Amino acid sequence: MKIIEGGVTAAKGFFAASTAAGIKYKDRTDMALIYSETPCRVAGTFTTNIVKAAPVKWDQKIVRESAYAQAVIVNSGIANACTGAEGYGYCQATADAAAEALGIPADSVLVASTGVIGMQLPMDRLTDGIRAMAPKLDGSLESGAGAARAIMTTDTRQKEAAVQFEVGGRTVTVGGMCKGSGMIHPNMCTMLAFVTTDLVISKELLQEALSEDIRDTYNMISVDGDTSTNDTVLLLANGQAGNAEITEKNADYEAFRQALNTINETLAKKMAGDGEGCTALFEVKIIGAESKEQAVTLSKSVITSNLTKAAIFGHDANWGRILCAMGYSRALFDPEKVDLFFESAAGKLQIIRDGVALDYSEEEATRILSEPEVTAIADVKMGDASATAWGCDLTFDYVKINADYRS
Amino acid sequence: MKIIEGGVTAAKGFFAASTAAGIKYKDRTDMALIYSETPCRVAGTFTTNIVKAAPVKWDQKIVRESAYAQAVIVNSGIANACTGAEGYGYCQATADAAAEALGIPADSVLVASTGVIGMQLPMDRLTDGIRAMAPKLDGSLESGAGAARAIMTTDTRQKEAAVQFEVGGRTVTVGGMCKGSGMIHPNMCTMLAFVTTDLVISKELLQEALSEDIRDTYNMISVDGDTSTNDTVLLLANGQAGNAEITEKNADYEAFRQALNTINETLAKKMAGDGEGCTALFEVKIIGAESKEQAVTLSKSVITSNLTKAAIFGHDANWGRILCAMGYSRALFDPEKVDLFFESAAGKLQIIRDGVALDYSEEEATRILSEPEVTAIADVKMGDASATAWGCDLTFDYVKINADYRS
Repeated sequence: MKIIEGGVTAAKGFFAASTAAGIKYKDRTDMALIYSETPCRVAGTFTTNIVKAAPVKWDQKIVRESAYAQAVIVNSGIANACTGAEGYGYCQATADAAAEALGIPADSVLVASTGVIGMQLPMDRLTDGIRAMAPKLDGSLESGAGAARAIMTTDTRQKEAAVQFEVGGRTVTVGGMCKGSGMIHPNMCTMLAFVTTDLVISKELLQEALSEDIRDTYNMISVDGDTSTNDTVLLLANGQAGNAEITEKNADYEAFRQALNTINETLAKKMAGDGEGCTALFEVKIIGAESKEQAVTLSKSVITSNLTKAAIFGHDANWGRILCAMGYSRALFDPEKVDLFFESAAGKLQIIRDGVALDYSEEEATRILSEPEVTAIADVKMGDASATAWGCDLTFDYVKINADYRS
Repeated sequence: MKIIEGGVTAAKGFFAASTAAGIKYKDRTDMALIYSETPCRVAGTFTTNIVKAAPVKWDQKIVRESAYAQAVIVNSGIANACTGAEGYGYCQATADAAAEALGIPADSVLVASTGVIGMQLPMDRLTDGIRAMAPKLDGSLESGAGAARAIMTTDTRQKEAAVQFEVGGRTVTVGGMCKGSGMIHPNMCTMLAFVTTDLVISKELLQEALSEDIRDTYNMISVDGDTSTNDTVLLLANGQAGNAEITEKNADYEAFRQALNTINETLAKKMAGDGEGCTALFEVKIIGAESKEQAVTLSKSVITSNLTKAAIFGHDANWGRILCAMGYSRALFDPEKVDLFFESAAGKLQIIRDGVALDYSEEEATRILSEPEVTAIADVKMGDASATAWGCDLTFDYVKINADYRS
């Protein structure tokens, strides 16, 4: 597997475009179109919030009922959530407009929205945006990057990733883009992620690969503990790599799983590391766990703890808060057996052994915690299972951004 | 029932003292002693965090095994949590010192600590503090208030409450004090609460009254979603009111339950309204719920949502975040049936009906949300159950306090 440049246009036959439709933001692009020149098998995973945005309901239907998908229309600025029947009607209208502009069936058009909850979309601007994008579609890396920028909300940078690997002598590419910065929490995030590949694979295995992989990637990040109404991951496969179709879990499937995992983990970490207002990516590894489930519960509890996140912002080795967050997670372990380490590019330092603080240097701990990517490793000494979760620090800017997001 | 002045010294036969022992803070009191001139029946509830501070373990043993308790030694500054066998030994040493100074058995001395996790207590200063307080004990309101101030950490004000009611012609008093500002979350808070009463009641009913009442009071508040290692509520009854002993759930028991609920709810709201860095008490009422459990889950999810809390700080009627937080709570309801109102001293305003925004005035909403106590009321229209939870807004100062708490 080889990491390459690019995002959603990296794989063969995928094109993208973006435009400034003026949906809510001024002086920036706010709509993106992903298009495959041939129909795609599609897999999707969606928010577990029972308040689901209209585009989530629309896409769930397309993924479930349509044989193929060929385009995705994304807008930022307005989430089209809590918008009732009117909002759902706008998904249909968006698909109709895209179908007409692209000459494809409306039930092969997926839609996604991100932004403020509760406002209705300005449909005329959305329709104009679709008409403006259709003729601009192209397969360049620049088009993909433009699409990645257009879907940003409070994100500070675009998020893309792409890899290549071989299947039976054929080169297969997987590429993706995502957005997500606030209202981000496991199961899933206020995040939109779009992954494209030219692999030939059955629809069942495409969905299974995605559903399994998000558990270790998007579902392991948290910015603020709030699970959005709009979370969507779409995976489109147009088959242009020309490999023999993958219909069982063989070595080719495993190669694809690895490639997909690399894309999803890269994008997930980019979201956590670009959390609203954050200054550091905060990684938490639980090792020596009795079970994967226990390790997941413990690691997520720590990355979600406001007190721990504020301590990371202060470069403060406040390990008591980490142990405390593990303690209220409802996973069972013996606090008096825990070892804890901090690690970053600046070094690695053991802080506690068997639940009690070592005589470590606070200065060295602060130096390690002052890096842009910091890791806490807790060994609960019960078994061989482990899990890694990603979050970020809690800062003044997080509060600033969210105290007045709507204006 | 009548609300009166005072705190832990309001009930007959209870005395308090405080001192500046220099445990961690400078130029302020940091130790408190509560003492009853006669032995008390005692009830207690404690943190559900599996990382339990040493004093929690000590008090659990006293409440379970001792027939009577007669004194409580409290210190602020150091939590005596994650301190291993050495830390537990300091609880015994504290009880021994208090027993000697007060002439009572060591197994009738309760202890409580709040502050930084992981540091060992300076036992010599603690012992000196106990010796300094014992001769200063008195039953004045000032002594009670002094004790309430001595146990504060990041609290900005002392928290006390007291009420009186009649049992068979005898006046019974219930009074209490608490501290709690950060690391506060249901089940229970980083909070210490001490309630005293002169009621005569069986130990079983004393514990049952407390265990039931904390579900509607202390367990319904959250400042930051972090459940502490030290949470403790102690309820001492010395029987000096001279009423006929309450041994069954009759009208007298109900009168006591009401009095206790008033004390606990008052103290709980004072903690939520004095959350670290907060500018407003945020009350969330869920009405029309199918069950109490559902209403509790929904209301707690909203008061714990960082995004909602930041919006309250910004006086922003960002109702989408409230609906979103209800949606990810895992309680089932129909988002398209929800009505939502904001209410404060400045008025009451309906924001959404049947899940969709009304054409309300943002200006009026902001005016309502600019008060120091604001309420969100969500009607899920499924039944008659309801619950109320209390939290606070998320502010710059919360981050500031917690990014550098230890220094």
